[in-house]
Amino acid sequence: MSYTFPVTRTTHPKPKPDQSNLGFGKYFTDHMFIMDYDEGQGWHDGKIVPYGPISLDPASCVLHYAQMMFEGMKAYRTPDGKINLFRPDMNAKRLNRTNERMCIPFMDEELFIEAVKATVHADEDWIPTAPGTALYIRPYIISDEVSFSVEPAKHYHFIIILCAVGAYYDINRGGLTGSHIYEEDEYIRAAVGGNYAGGMRATKKALEAGCKEVLWLDARDHKYVEEVGTSNAFFMIDDEVITAPLGGSILPGVTRDSTITLLKKWGYKVSERKLSIDDIEAASKNGTLQEAWATGTACVISPIGYLRYKGEDIVINNGNVGALSQKLYDTIYGMQTGVVPDDMGWIVQI
Amino acid sequence: MSYTFPVTRTTHPKPKPDQSNLGFGKYFTDHMFIMDYDEGQGWHDGKIVPYGPISLDPASCVLHYAQMMFEGMKAYRTPDGKINLFRPDMNAKRLNRTNERMCIPFMDEELFIEAVKATVHADEDWIPTAPGTALYIRPYIISDEVSFSVEPAKHYHFIIILCAVGAYYDINRGGLTGSHIYEEDEYIRAAVGGNYAGGMRATKKALEAGCKEVLWLDARDHKYVEEVGTSNAFFMIDDEVITAPLGGSILPGVTRDSTITLLKKWGYKVSERKLSIDDIEAASKNGTLQEAWATGTACVISPIGYLRYKGEDIVINNGNVGALSQKLYDTIYGMQTGVVPDDMGWIVQI
Repeated sequence: MSYTFPVTRTTHPKPKPDQSNLGFGKYFTDHMFIMDYDEGQGWHDGKIVPYGPISLDPASCVLHYAQMMFEGMKAYRTPDGKINLFRPDMNAKRLNRTNERMCIPFMDEELFIEAVKATVHADEDWIPTAPGTALYIRPYIISDEVSFSVEPAKHYHFIIILCAVGAYYDINRGGLTGSHIYEEDEYIRAAVGGNYAGGMRATKKALEAGCKEVLWLDARDHKYVEEVGTSNAFFMIDDEVITAPLGGSILPGVTRDSTITLLKKWGYKVSERKLSIDDIEAASKNGTLQEAWATGTACVISPIGYLRYKGEDIVINNGNVGALSQKLYDTIYGMQTGVVPDDMGWIVQI
Repeated sequence: MSYTFPVTRTTHPKPKPDQSNLGFGKYFTDHMFIMDYDEGQGWHDGKIVPYGPISLDPASCVLHYAQMMFEGMKAYRTPDGKINLFRPDMNAKRLNRTNERMCIPFMDEELFIEAVKATVHADEDWIPTAPGTALYIRPYIISDEVSFSVEPAKHYHFIIILCAVGAYYDINRGGLTGSHIYEEDEYIRAAVGGNYAGGMRATKKALEAGCKEVLWLDARDHKYVEEVGTSNAFFMIDDEVITAPLGGSILPGVTRDSTITLLKKWGYKVSERKLSIDDIEAASKNGTLQEAWATGTACVISPIGYLRYKGEDIVINNGNVGALSQKLYDTIYGMQTGVVPDDMGWIVQI
């Protein structure tokens, strides 16, 4: 099946932002994709329209019960002028897994990928080219059904918006250096995916303590490492790379999967298993804690230099970027931006 | 301090609905209250305007990270034509507790109550008078800040919408009879308040099994009774009335508090303590399980007649409404609607 979408171009294109100060989520492009779902009709009438406000009934259930989902991915301009997407099939599959969990209707994977391609194509002159920059792609689904019933809706909007984003480290995290992470011991984040709002107070507490992100422990035993902020967490202890196994509350990150795949290809021992905060502390004390990093679409690879735990700092690799963190970043970001050959079949060009 | 709000009346009032078939959340009134928050300015410019769509930037953080909160309360028309609110100070206090948890700014309690009163006053001809009906009041807060940062916003809207609602049992639950409840053993609801979306799939499963609501167990041990659907749960075993103690995941319900207060006044033994599903099953087997009910603003008191657990039904009070459930309903609903004298100081008249 092939999909085409009508395009209505804006008559008032915005000026392009300064690429040296893009930040994250500040500069949205000129167009957006919008598609409706109605029970009986399925997803229909996808189209590209000028970026502009959405009108919602004040009783829309998205404003009350948060039946919503989102994806996140990036498009990169390669040195030879092509446009790269990184493993968009993974986002399409994850979208449908989230949809199933949230009782949102299934979307054909090809429809999703073609919608992303068409939207990026419409605003391709917005893809920044400065080092570390990208076009961030935010597909999301909301229900605008007027209902106070805590039951799945029958009408949805699928929307894609785009924004030019800067180098994640430079803007938000102080360069590709080891970040300072705060171990959260009071607020248990939702056992259900997508609940970022619930973690805001813990994030605020971490920021007040001078840390960049929150290290989340599991909701049940409050002992095992789950994620860092909104990213997956990796720890290298005694030559073994450990990350939390996929399960109810672990984000099945595209960068997480890519990291595991590359490490195995390179011959590293990788374990998807539970790792307790006490084991990390013990490894730090006996000198076997080698590196730690977070993985995510926004940051790609974010080295962890310090972990604040019970009021004290666990220092990792002297607070510096580890060799393996750097190699992972260079390889994945290099493939994404077209400066490292894609020998994995992960790049889809528009 | 006293508050007044400008009122812009609609030029196109809607026809009033048939009071015999109101349902829940279907008939919204002619006006709404809206007030903004800006950092540095606080809550400002509260006003009553015609009910109509809200325009949101597609990158508004409410649509992506669900930083939102809501309250629920009701207004009743008394036989002598007055308008009753039930313990609005409890909603004001809970609003601020939720706000604190969600990093949403504090709101003066009197401002909240005066806004509710003014909004109900503006649409007082919408308050239905048929038995069991009421005007449902939905105050809520969203952030329309354009930000992809998972950090608290600096700009919010506070909105109040109203809808005429029918007798909860008649419409949604099949009359004031014992409801059929499904014990949830797969989906753990969010440990963070407000996450109703996460429970939708479990609700769907319960409905498919022919049950009305989901009985939620605690996220940690998956063993202790927490809530029924979106209501608090009470069990009477061997002349002791037991409900879950307030804590991270238990809704501090206004009807819950009123129920506990009345039962104690009437001389019953009431315990706010953990109760395991196994204890309930054992009490059923040894004949000491006397009654069970849920409490909430929408239903007031909802008797539980059957509990589906591990594929079998625990039958409570032969599936009938218990004497104490009926007395609580008659008393609380009677006070709310002005047919039972308020000797508790719980009624606020508009």
